[in-house]
Amino acid sequence: MDVGFIGLGNMGAAMARNLIKAGHRVTAYNRNRDKAAELAKEGALVADRPADAARTGVAITMLANDDALSAVTEGPEGILAGLPADGILVSMSTVSLAVTRRLARAATDAGKVFIAAPVFGRPDAAEAAKLFIPVAGPAAAVAKIEPLLAAMGQKTVPFGDDPVHAAAVKISGNFMLQSAIESLAEALALVRKHGVDPAGYLDFMTSTLFTAPLYKGYGGAIVTQRYEPAGFALPLALKDTKLALAAADEAGVPLPLADLIRDRFLIGLSRGWENLDMAALGKVAAENAGLDG
Amino acid sequence: MDVGFIGLGNMGAAMARNLIKAGHRVTAYNRNRDKAAELAKEGALVADRPADAARTGVAITMLANDDALSAVTEGPEGILAGLPADGILVSMSTVSLAVTRRLARAATDAGKVFIAAPVFGRPDAAEAAKLFIPVAGPAAAVAKIEPLLAAMGQKTVPFGDDPVHAAAVKISGNFMLQSAIESLAEALALVRKHGVDPAGYLDFMTSTLFTAPLYKGYGGAIVTQRYEPAGFALPLALKDTKLALAAADEAGVPLPLADLIRDRFLIGLSRGWENLDMAALGKVAAENAGLDG
Amino acid sequence: MDVGFIGLGNMGAAMARNLIKAGHRVTAYNRNRDKAAELAKEGALVADRPADAARTGVAITMLANDDALSAVTEGPEGILAGLPADGILVSMSTVSLAVTRRLARAATDAGKVFIAAPVFGRPDAAEAAKLFIPVAGPAAAVAKIEPLLAAMGQKTVPFGDDPVHAAAVKISGNFMLQSAIESLAEALALVRKHGVDPAGYLDFMTSTLFTAPLYKGYGGAIVTQRYEPAGFALPLALKDTKLALAAADEAGVPLPLADLIRDRFLIGLSRGWENLDMAALGKVAAENAGLDG
Amino acid sequence: MDVGFIGLGNMGAAMARNLIKAGHRVTAYNRNRDKAAELAKEGALVADRPADAARTGVAITMLANDDALSAVTEGPEGILAGLPADGILVSMSTVSLAVTRRLARAATDAGKVFIAAPVFGRPDAAEAAKLFIPVAGPAAAVAKIEPLLAAMGQKTVPFGDDPVHAAAVKISGNFMLQSAIESLAEALALVRKHGVDPAGYLDFMTSTLFTAPLYKGYGGAIVTQRYEPAGFALPLALKDTKLALAAADEAGVPLPLADLIRDRFLIGLSRGWENLDMAALGKVAAENAGLDG
Repeated sequence: MDVGFIGLGNMGAAMARNLIKAGHRVTAYNRNRDKAAELAKEGALVADRPADAARTGVAITMLANDDALSAVTEGPEGILAGLPADGILVSMSTVSLAVTRRLARAATDAGKVFIAAPVFGRPDAAEAAKLFIPVAGPAAAVAKIEPLLAAMGQKTVPFGDDPVHAAAVKISGNFMLQSAIESLAEALALVRKHGVDPAGYLDFMTSTLFTAPLYKGYGGAIVTQRYEPAGFALPLALKDTKLALAAADEAGVPLPLADLIRDRFLIGLSRGWENLDMAALGKVAAENAGLDG
Repeated sequence: MDVGFIGLGNMGAAMARNLIKAGHRVTAYNRNRDKAAELAKEGALVADRPADAARTGVAITMLANDDALSAVTEGPEGILAGLPADGILVSMSTVSLAVTRRLARAATDAGKVFIAAPVFGRPDAAEAAKLFIPVAGPAAAVAKIEPLLAAMGQKTVPFGDDPVHAAAVKISGNFMLQSAIESLAEALALVRKHGVDPAGYLDFMTSTLFTAPLYKGYGGAIVTQRYEPAGFALPLALKDTKLALAAADEAGVPLPLADLIRDRFLIGLSRGWENLDMAALGKVAAENAGLDG
Repeated sequence: MDVGFIGLGNMGAAMARNLIKAGHRVTAYNRNRDKAAELAKEGALVADRPADAARTGVAITMLANDDALSAVTEGPEGILAGLPADGILVSMSTVSLAVTRRLARAATDAGKVFIAAPVFGRPDAAEAAKLFIPVAGPAAAVAKIEPLLAAMGQKTVPFGDDPVHAAAVKISGNFMLQSAIESLAEALALVRKHGVDPAGYLDFMTSTLFTAPLYKGYGGAIVTQRYEPAGFALPLALKDTKLALAAADEAGVPLPLADLIRDRFLIGLSRGWENLDMAALGKVAAENAGLDG
Repeated sequence: MDVGFIGLGNMGAAMARNLIKAGHRVTAYNRNRDKAAELAKEGALVADRPADAARTGVAITMLANDDALSAVTEGPEGILAGLPADGILVSMSTVSLAVTRRLARAATDAGKVFIAAPVFGRPDAAEAAKLFIPVAGPAAAVAKIEPLLAAMGQKTVPFGDDPVHAAAVKISGNFMLQSAIESLAEALALVRKHGVDPAGYLDFMTSTLFTAPLYKGYGGAIVTQRYEPAGFALPLALKDTKLALAAADEAGVPLPLADLIRDRFLIGLSRGWENLDMAALGKVAAENAGLDG
């Protein structure tokens, strides 16, 4: 399939590469051209503007935040300008419900189709085509891009035709992930302060009740106090927490656990931890308990 | 092995039965004699007093709380009075660090051995001998009772020779469990309020990142708003949260997530939900968001 | 002095009237013209557009929120377009730091002067010219409008030349006020649940340590459960809490008490209390404790 | 009146001295005899045991905590043993509802009278006989000791005949005080981080809305970062917060603000601030915001 790919960061480049491997013809755009040039070596065409990548009929975006998505979507050189009638914009990054809603409406108004298909998984999962993808948008369009999603992820689950729903799933899922880390952070501080071997504790918990790999991964980082290099750095994590709080705010949902996590990230950042992984919630909990973190 | 078993509630009766099945000779004591009589049909001897059950040389306790444990352990008719020299008390219920510490010292002072081996698992896991058991106490004694633990659980993990450590693992683990439920409660309220199908959301999360069965179990209860009959009722859950907060207090560890959960349980109880399962954290979150719970 | 007044709600109308009484010549603008017509009876001139009111050289705004302030300030019919060179915009409503910063810059860029002078006080204080006013902006301009502020308030305190500082004082002060209410709410729930007469308790506290009138006022509302008519309704209060959280967010300041208050307001709104006064934090605390509120 | 006084710390010694000055005959007991000897110079008789002080017919206690109160009240040398029939124990320190309830019952069972009359005020207020005193107990006994209270305080307010009620007023009042400090702590961190002069901010707030002296006092400590010498040190403040949480727990009242404050005190203590005044909540808030505290 012909497909435009906009946004070639760690995640995006890996995803685009998997599309190429699966036999799709990718036209790539990245603000910094070097990234696109690199992908060209693997067979991608290079677009000079988002609109050009979108002329393929399907434009996938994988960008840092709301502003970056708006910047490539709107305006005379943007995706919506470049997509042909009934062309599809597939928004795969983690963005706010508000921008999802606004751009979905703009797409519809322009006779184009907007699909939200944000991804769960870190760069290694992107590379291995093992992402988890909730997807929402008009059914026919979702069916059409299904092969593309299949080339990037290990599991795609539909959430109806409103793109905002898939964005909400992603935001809420990230919140659950951060909650699990905060829970590990507090639990480990508690047992450590009582003299229990934290590695033994984590090993016990993750081999019995908390068998999901994320507990082992984040718990391990906390136990070994290894917060660098960051898989997902504090400022990005804080951005995600704010997306959850903004979504909660829109709908009038108190989210006290997200409040707590946000404050913990702020504490970390106020201590200069902008390069630490979000597992550093464990460092906040440890230091607040008088332990080295 | 000859073993005394004190406390034949839902959990205790199932555990004692598994000991009998495994060929151990169980002498059972229960405040309410009917329970012991029932077990006698399956081959248990019946003791009139905890001290009598303890004369076997090993006394296992499975009781509701600190007070119940103290009541059967201390005094002239208590376990410590009945245990022979070097006899072993195996405390398997969830009790405070404080009572664990106090009784362990009392046992040592009396020339007896105290082991903490609290269990993770609900009655069905007890029945199936699938409990998870952190254990701590003097190594030789732990080795001696290992066959007993093996008859009741699927996995036993040692945490050194201080019984308080195993108690801390249990208390901290319960806190992680409650945290996971609170996280589900808030996440599900958020997506519901945005119109996402909560069952679909749960299904997605539990088949991707949150694969630990507890997420499916508690999440399912929240999604279907099925909080009765309670597997573990609010008042018992609140007791556990208080144990975590007391342990945190002793060691000077802030545990804001436990604060939050405690307050949520109190809200539930103030609404008359004493018969609901602790999954009713989902009902609190839903109602606070203006949803039916 | 010649002065334009934009925004004739309960607060604004009373403030404009006090300017007239003090001998100033007021040119009033209000989106709904009836309000301006009413003021005309007392001597005000009526402007058709914000820009026209601003031609007086000094334009005071008293509006509901950021959007309303932006709407009357920017654009060809807005205040900045109408103000003569070196003309002064005095922003007196409670708005975000962000909009204050943005409009202050826009004013400066246009060769005009921006002063923030938000007010503390309810409509009765506005009417009695008893408002408290933190003010910040270029010193000469602040000196020039001092007689106007004196006609509306009982106390004006300068906070330097950056308008954002006065806005921060107002936002932070509102947060302190809401915190005091939350504190009363919880304290009163606690004593009530223990059988103490809450009126007696409040009387004791407010005649000893908590002598500031606000404690008597808000505490009295909670004790008598009289939340209507609202002096300041829940949705407006929530707006203020969000301003505090946004200001905190900008500067990376955790504000856990504001998180708590925001969640409490959301709970109230989810129960349909949009017409209740913000003292209804007392109703949330009472109901959460199983008391009638 | 003949009166026994048990507990001659900073507060107690000042209070006993005021009783002597008012013409009452004081028999003093203190665990450390030097303190009693000092008071003897001012005319007090010295008792060797609490029971001896209680033989006067009225025994006032001013002690550090629950345990200290129990120690002097119970047992063969305790106050209850020494009080004559219908003798009165006046408990004036800050103790738990639980110990108040227990000792009140013990007194009644022994045919004695228990009155709770805890005091608000620091040592300087005790010295100046300016304490505020909520009092509760059997009416006739309260009337009888009224002259004693009048000699120590500036205002006594009755709360009925259940001593627990006066204890609840004291505990809840302390909670309100701590809440005000936390509110100042967060508000000041917020304005400081935005570049506002915190002294100017505090001055404005305390001369307008927050006129109660406590705001000036605690706010001033935070603004000047002067936390030593402690008027009331962190460990004592934490004890008070725990009393509030225990009272809340008993009655099933969520007290999230107290949870927050407790966690803040724990953070301070984990940083080694046991000698700082409870105003150091301001230091926690400042440091969490990346400010020096």
